[in-house]
Amino acid sequence: MQIGVVGSGSCDEELYAIAFRVGQLIAEKGHVLVNGGLGGVMEASAMGAKSRNGITVGILPRKAKDANPYIDIKIATDMGHARNVVIVHSSDAIISIGGEYGTISEIAIALKEGKPVASIKPKVVIEGMRIFQNPEEAVEFVIEAVKNQISSK
Amino acid sequence: MQIGVVGSGSCDEELYAIAFRVGQLIAEKGHVLVNGGLGGVMEASAMGAKSRNGITVGILPRKAKDANPYIDIKIATDMGHARNVVIVHSSDAIISIGGEYGTISEIAIALKEGKPVASIKPKVVIEGMRIFQNPEEAVEFVIEAVKNQISSK
Amino acid sequence: MQIGVVGSGSCDEELYAIAFRVGQLIAEKGHVLVNGGLGGVMEASAMGAKSRNGITVGILPRKAKDANPYIDIKIATDMGHARNVVIVHSSDAIISIGGEYGTISEIAIALKEGKPVASIKPKVVIEGMRIFQNPEEAVEFVIEAVKNQISSK
Amino acid sequence: MQIGVVGSGSCDEELYAIAFRVGQLIAEKGHVLVNGGLGGVMEASAMGAKSRNGITVGILPRKAKDANPYIDIKIATDMGHARNVVIVHSSDAIISIGGEYGTISEIAIALKEGKPVASIKPKVVIEGMRIFQNPEEAVEFVIEAVKNQISSK
Repeated sequence: MQIGVVGSGSCDEELYAIAFRVGQLIAEKGHVLVNGGLGGVMEASAMGAKSRNGITVGILPRKAKDANPYIDIKIATDMGHARNVVIVHSSDAIISIGGEYGTISEIAIALKEGKPVASIKPKVVIEGMRIFQNPEEAVEFVIEAVKNQISSK
Repeated sequence: MQIGVVGSGSCDEELYAIAFRVGQLIAEKGHVLVNGGLGGVMEASAMGAKSRNGITVGILPRKAKDANPYIDIKIATDMGHARNVVIVHSSDAIISIGGEYGTISEIAIALKEGKPVASIKPKVVIEGMRIFQNPEEAVEFVIEAVKNQISSK
Repeated sequence: MQIGVVGSGSCDEELYAIAFRVGQLIAEKGHVLVNGGLGGVMEASAMGAKSRNGITVGILPRKAKDANPYIDIKIATDMGHARNVVIVHSSDAIISIGGEYGTISEIAIALKEGKPVASIKPKVVIEGMRIFQNPEEAVEFVIEAVKNQISSK
Repeated sequence: MQIGVVGSGSCDEELYAIAFRVGQLIAEKGHVLVNGGLGGVMEASAMGAKSRNGITVGILPRKAKDANPYIDIKIATDMGHARNVVIVHSSDAIISIGGEYGTISEIAIALKEGKPVASIKPKVVIEGMRIFQNPEEAVEFVIEAVKNQISSK
């Protein structure tokens, strides 16, 4: 699976630690981490995945050189916010951690596409998202949800 | 000005009537209506603008032939949801009418870009949007807000 | 019809004069001019169209404020070269005037999409383009070609 | 490095064998293969890279499920031809093999961006591309060219 992690480009220590742990868990379970490739939640989740030898994909708003140091595969879109849509389409499920306007746009598109969305400390509650308190539950939820989607097809 | 009107591709009669009136007001005041070019709120607002001899621009997710009959200028992106971002960038301000997930994504991107957002009957309240009860107030608000942005530069 | 005019953002006087005349002809025949909204061939063709009271649409790589003064409708994509594809999808036919790499990419996509392409002084000859010596022939060709496509459907 | 390989979605056996060998060489030298993720030259180059345990990235015009079986990382853009631009931005250099209109558009954008372009059996010769007869020379050229670009910065 390719699991997307979305959240702000700058965040406090609590969200950073949560994102790091989410990245670890995705990698431990053998999945690919997809995110926006920049700082904050994106950096923390990629760092977490690399600490467990996972593979990280950054879908960047501009250039490859903007990627944080924990991104393996750099997708340079030069498309600004439109890259948010590419993150969603390239992810089997989305985990949001905190998040401002950009994150809200990604959650909304993911829900529109019928993708599982697990949210930790969301800024806005949107119908269809599932809210979790800790990384373990969120990661477990999206993996099971994707498996169920596949088996029901 | 180019004023964007966003909302669902299918809607009830109340939202349709509101969207129609918003389109009329935008045209009466001499502004260009920008929307997503499809049905529901998009169709109603374009119809309203044309009833007052306004100019309508539809930024379509796929092809020009998908446009509703009230669209003058057809921008065919073939980019699906990524066209939502183009609608926002091409609008000086956004008026949302009702709206589901796609609309939420457009509102979020507009707020991120610092554009005035007037919302009538929003499904989700997002910090930064201004909520209005009727078309007249919403249209007046965005026109004044854009003027103030220009004059403060 | 919406007719796209593509060419370099800076050009010599000869190409500028050709582009101006192409814009005039498109407007005289009642069609909408679509281009990339910047300088050179884009500016000249838009100026020509406005001299005949035509409607001009600029599909910009970045922001609305980058548009030349002869653009009526400003589509701000913030997508860089990907906006070239939007120009092609939004045009019933393409007229290229001179042109460097960006223009070549637009011609190639237009030919792939089966759209009529009339080229004046192309830098590279690509199978499927029709080469013309003057604006009148190029404009007449694309209008007839689009009519024939419509009638054969 | 991330090296892009572009070419048609269906091709004859000769081009297929060349693309397979190009993919092998990119993987042998430890680089990531980026392509459009579909058939023909894209499939052959990805198969070649996987035969040498390389990493393959497919930047798809529509959905992840459209990827050929040799793609590790699936970037689903849902943007049609606009994904060609993402392929170019995500590649340090481009190797084209045969190719029709879509490939021409990718070569043109790469040259515009100043990226090294090695072409084997190109359909159209564009100023700035370097033409090679065999995979070894083409792969060696782009790797050296990227190294030289980096060292001259």
